[in-house]
Amino acid sequence: MAHVTNPKAEEILDKEFKCLNAGFVRLVDFMGGDESIVQAARVSYGKGTKSVNEDRILLRYLMRHMHTTPFEMVELKFHVKLPIFVARQWIRHRTANVNELSGRYSIMKDEFYVPSADTIKRQSINNKQGRSDEEISPELQQKILSILLQDQQTSYNHYEELLNDNIARELARVNLPLSLYTEWYWKIDLHNLLHFLHLRMDKHAQFEIRIYAETMGEIVKRIAPMAWEAFEDYVFYGERFSKAELKVIADHLDMQKITKEYLEKFNLKGLEAEEFLEKLNKLKK
Amino acid sequence: MAHVTNPKAEEILDKEFKCLNAGFVRLVDFMGGDESIVQAARVSYGKGTKSVNEDRILLRYLMRHMHTTPFEMVELKFHVKLPIFVARQWIRHRTANVNELSGRYSIMKDEFYVPSADTIKRQSINNKQGRSDEEISPELQQKILSILLQDQQTSYNHYEELLNDNIARELARVNLPLSLYTEWYWKIDLHNLLHFLHLRMDKHAQFEIRIYAETMGEIVKRIAPMAWEAFEDYVFYGERFSKAELKVIADHLDMQKITKEYLEKFNLKGLEAEEFLEKLNKLKK
Amino acid sequence: MAHVTNPKAEEILDKEFKCLNAGFVRLVDFMGGDESIVQAARVSYGKGTKSVNEDRILLRYLMRHMHTTPFEMVELKFHVKLPIFVARQWIRHRTANVNELSGRYSIMKDEFYVPSADTIKRQSINNKQGRSDEEISPELQQKILSILLQDQQTSYNHYEELLNDNIARELARVNLPLSLYTEWYWKIDLHNLLHFLHLRMDKHAQFEIRIYAETMGEIVKRIAPMAWEAFEDYVFYGERFSKAELKVIADHLDMQKITKEYLEKFNLKGLEAEEFLEKLNKLKK
Amino acid sequence: MAHVTNPKAEEILDKEFKCLNAGFVRLVDFMGGDESIVQAARVSYGKGTKSVNEDRILLRYLMRHMHTTPFEMVELKFHVKLPIFVARQWIRHRTANVNELSGRYSIMKDEFYVPSADTIKRQSINNKQGRSDEEISPELQQKILSILLQDQQTSYNHYEELLNDNIARELARVNLPLSLYTEWYWKIDLHNLLHFLHLRMDKHAQFEIRIYAETMGEIVKRIAPMAWEAFEDYVFYGERFSKAELKVIADHLDMQKITKEYLEKFNLKGLEAEEFLEKLNKLKK
Repeated sequence: MAHVTNPKAEEILDKEFKCLNAGFVRLVDFMGGDESIVQAARVSYGKGTKSVNEDRILLRYLMRHMHTTPFEMVELKFHVKLPIFVARQWIRHRTANVNELSGRYSIMKDEFYVPSADTIKRQSINNKQGRSDEEISPELQQKILSILLQDQQTSYNHYEELLNDNIARELARVNLPLSLYTEWYWKIDLHNLLHFLHLRMDKHAQFEIRIYAETMGEIVKRIAPMAWEAFEDYVFYGERFSKAELKVIADHLDMQKITKEYLEKFNLKGLEAEEFLEKLNKLKK
Repeated sequence: MAHVTNPKAEEILDKEFKCLNAGFVRLVDFMGGDESIVQAARVSYGKGTKSVNEDRILLRYLMRHMHTTPFEMVELKFHVKLPIFVARQWIRHRTANVNELSGRYSIMKDEFYVPSADTIKRQSINNKQGRSDEEISPELQQKILSILLQDQQTSYNHYEELLNDNIARELARVNLPLSLYTEWYWKIDLHNLLHFLHLRMDKHAQFEIRIYAETMGEIVKRIAPMAWEAFEDYVFYGERFSKAELKVIADHLDMQKITKEYLEKFNLKGLEAEEFLEKLNKLKK
Repeated sequence: MAHVTNPKAEEILDKEFKCLNAGFVRLVDFMGGDESIVQAARVSYGKGTKSVNEDRILLRYLMRHMHTTPFEMVELKFHVKLPIFVARQWIRHRTANVNELSGRYSIMKDEFYVPSADTIKRQSINNKQGRSDEEISPELQQKILSILLQDQQTSYNHYEELLNDNIARELARVNLPLSLYTEWYWKIDLHNLLHFLHLRMDKHAQFEIRIYAETMGEIVKRIAPMAWEAFEDYVFYGERFSKAELKVIADHLDMQKITKEYLEKFNLKGLEAEEFLEKLNKLKK
Repeated sequence: MAHVTNPKAEEILDKEFKCLNAGFVRLVDFMGGDESIVQAARVSYGKGTKSVNEDRILLRYLMRHMHTTPFEMVELKFHVKLPIFVARQWIRHRTANVNELSGRYSIMKDEFYVPSADTIKRQSINNKQGRSDEEISPELQQKILSILLQDQQTSYNHYEELLNDNIARELARVNLPLSLYTEWYWKIDLHNLLHFLHLRMDKHAQFEIRIYAETMGEIVKRIAPMAWEAFEDYVFYGERFSKAELKVIADHLDMQKITKEYLEKFNLKGLEAEEFLEKLNKLKK
């Protein structure tokens, strides 16, 4: 099992996947994949495993029933370059290991996040934390960009001036803006990474962090393709309904034609189809 | 805010709620309640809070959208007496603080889990990890009970014999059975407790741990009644559907009558109703 | 045990302790104190506790031997206002619960960290991450301050201009500097808080976060005075020596006069004195 | 960096290292080694790294100053077979990932921990949680062994009898003893593993878990030899002294001959020697 070769993942090791104007995500190392999820799950079943003999079915069962611990057996390590305001959202996920560039030790580089003109948007009205979809005028875009660029240059010039006066780095950097790029090594297990991606690939996440999340999603797809597929099917493109919502659905759902045979058309077979019919029958009660 | 009085919770402080034949759950201390969830959430909104002025609406919004961090601001501490096989399932939840009775320091008491006769059941056929619902004969029940009781007595007698020979406690105890009672202090925040209860109040959880989970659920209901209600509505009695399942539902759901006015009958109002209609409309695409 | 009154801690509840030019630490709530540490430790000893009958001795024993779990049974919740560059160091401590003001939801206030003139120092030569102790000229101090103040004002003016153009808050804020104040609720158990304070009250920690750590230290001293005393004696003012260093010490240590009687003068008595003599004797071998 | 070959570690992959009478530790997979610790640390220093150019020196500096996060960048995965009473001590370390054999799904095997005769000892008098060093008579050893073996056989026979009556596995197993062997996959980062080993290789740890800890220590030595050496030098064979103890040492330490030149004999050189002299000088004040 150990060090199983995975050419699709290994061929992207150490490659920088560009994010935003100057950032990147780079897969530094990884341990395990689909087969190590299944392997860890099987230890739970001991002698009793014989009947559960298809990896994909088992892996999907685990994801569907939120048996999350086997997914923790895969580990990924990334090197990421990202603006500080993105880093501040990112670091809220606590179940990960981090080593970040320190502005106390090092001189920060002259690199800032500059949004591309078409991503500069108005405040959304219904989404209190997000942007409107509406386009703004090229004139306004340019005005915003020139304000951003000018302030970034001024603050970096002053940072250099303070360093030239030999002011302590830890103090000289306090006025650098949140758009400054930082870098870190970030290591996380697959279960927690999928949770991170679920929240950060969501349409309510800020555009800038979404770019990073989507890039890492592509990487996961190579390392653990069956886990990724199950994640998309059951979690990312799934939906939760509340007790009251389920009642409404039950009242307006025509279940007559939803039979085991019918479900096969949707690729819902075996235990998965049975579980679905059971969920629907429970609604009707 | 601090030390807000909560008479419904305070009146059960230190009371032992019996679980199984000789176990209990006892609320030792707690910090916060519904109001501290809302308080913590509001710091995120700063100046922008004025419009979100109803605690219950905010709290339900947080639960519905899995904004879980404010629920971490409530803390509960329990004293629990429980059989070791239950303790072994329980301890798998890592985000908690524990101090357990040590069989290296202390002499374990002569107290064992003995199932009540009516909970002795056959192996379930479709649920590989659980019991069948079917009753078994009183004769078989009595046979099982007498085997259990006799082995518990024998093993405890031998434990005492080893202690009388002054064998080290850490060694004398190795043959004590998993049915032996242990005790611990267990402290956890409300978010993680609700996650624990979701898994352990579930019908797939072993009967014995479910008894403890349900008892703690009653305690949570007193400490944070609005959070508990939201947990039941959105999480515990809610249901997740996969991408494929949603397609089937969409094809057989008659949405014509599901209007905002109609939803009010189900107490689905305001933003919650809008979000539901949005989810349904997305299905139809 | 629950809700034991602790007047020395309760009298500071909700009071703002000023930190830096515009920040503060405020104790919002707490659960437990010295007596709950001892209470949790005693569950481990069960029947065997009778001999360990003095709380202070037990608590000091726990701290000395790094039996850390009983200290996790005390919980503290703070409301903190702090510059973002301090928040970025602080958040690296993962074992805590946080709700922070969001610049996506809220309009950030016009409040920035401005160092007092006498804390503006040169880069230290031997401490790569810190400041020199040497004073700098008042002229240079004033130059630095005026650069900082001017950039803070410019960046806030531009932030307001972008908000006036109704640019999304999540974007308008990207050029705000790391000296901007933010706020959060921060909840942590006593063991992890002491670990945080050990690192952040250390002379190698940045001056600005040290101010916050020292303020929280004063608060802990009121909530759990015996734990604080033990922390100072064994951890904060203690010292670790390596294998090689111990050899050197052993070779030059005159142990003849270090007797149990002699140690009493230093308040090293009972088990603690025995353990010390045992450590010293081990060195000499 | 990724997938650097490490023949000394790879040659033991998947080998079972025997522990106790029927247990084992098996290294299933690992990610990283000494070089990935250094790599992660260097990201913190950015441009400023040039002067810290020797891996070993940097790695030892990190360990000495408890800069623990770079050690989290190495990950190890073990397959372990161990008695349940050992598993119960082990699982108290929460920062790890676990998948354990489930007695609800699987039929447990007839394998129990049987101490070798010479490890059966009396209760220690001064160590309340441990064994005396004194030998006991062969007759008493044999008596204890025969009690243990007999009860293990009885309880397993009864377990089989209950299974034959088709009693649910989750119930049939409740009287199995703590000496029964279980198995798990256990994954942990190097920093947390070293903390585990520090506590569990300690002479106060129970003999049985110490055997496992020492076995894993040998494995770590192959994966990250420089980190292991630093761990032994600074942590495992190091010693902490309290404020009062330091005063006593200061009063009886003849520091005249402890010079930089002298320290070289003990392989204390460069920054490490300077730091030691600084610690000693601080004592004398």
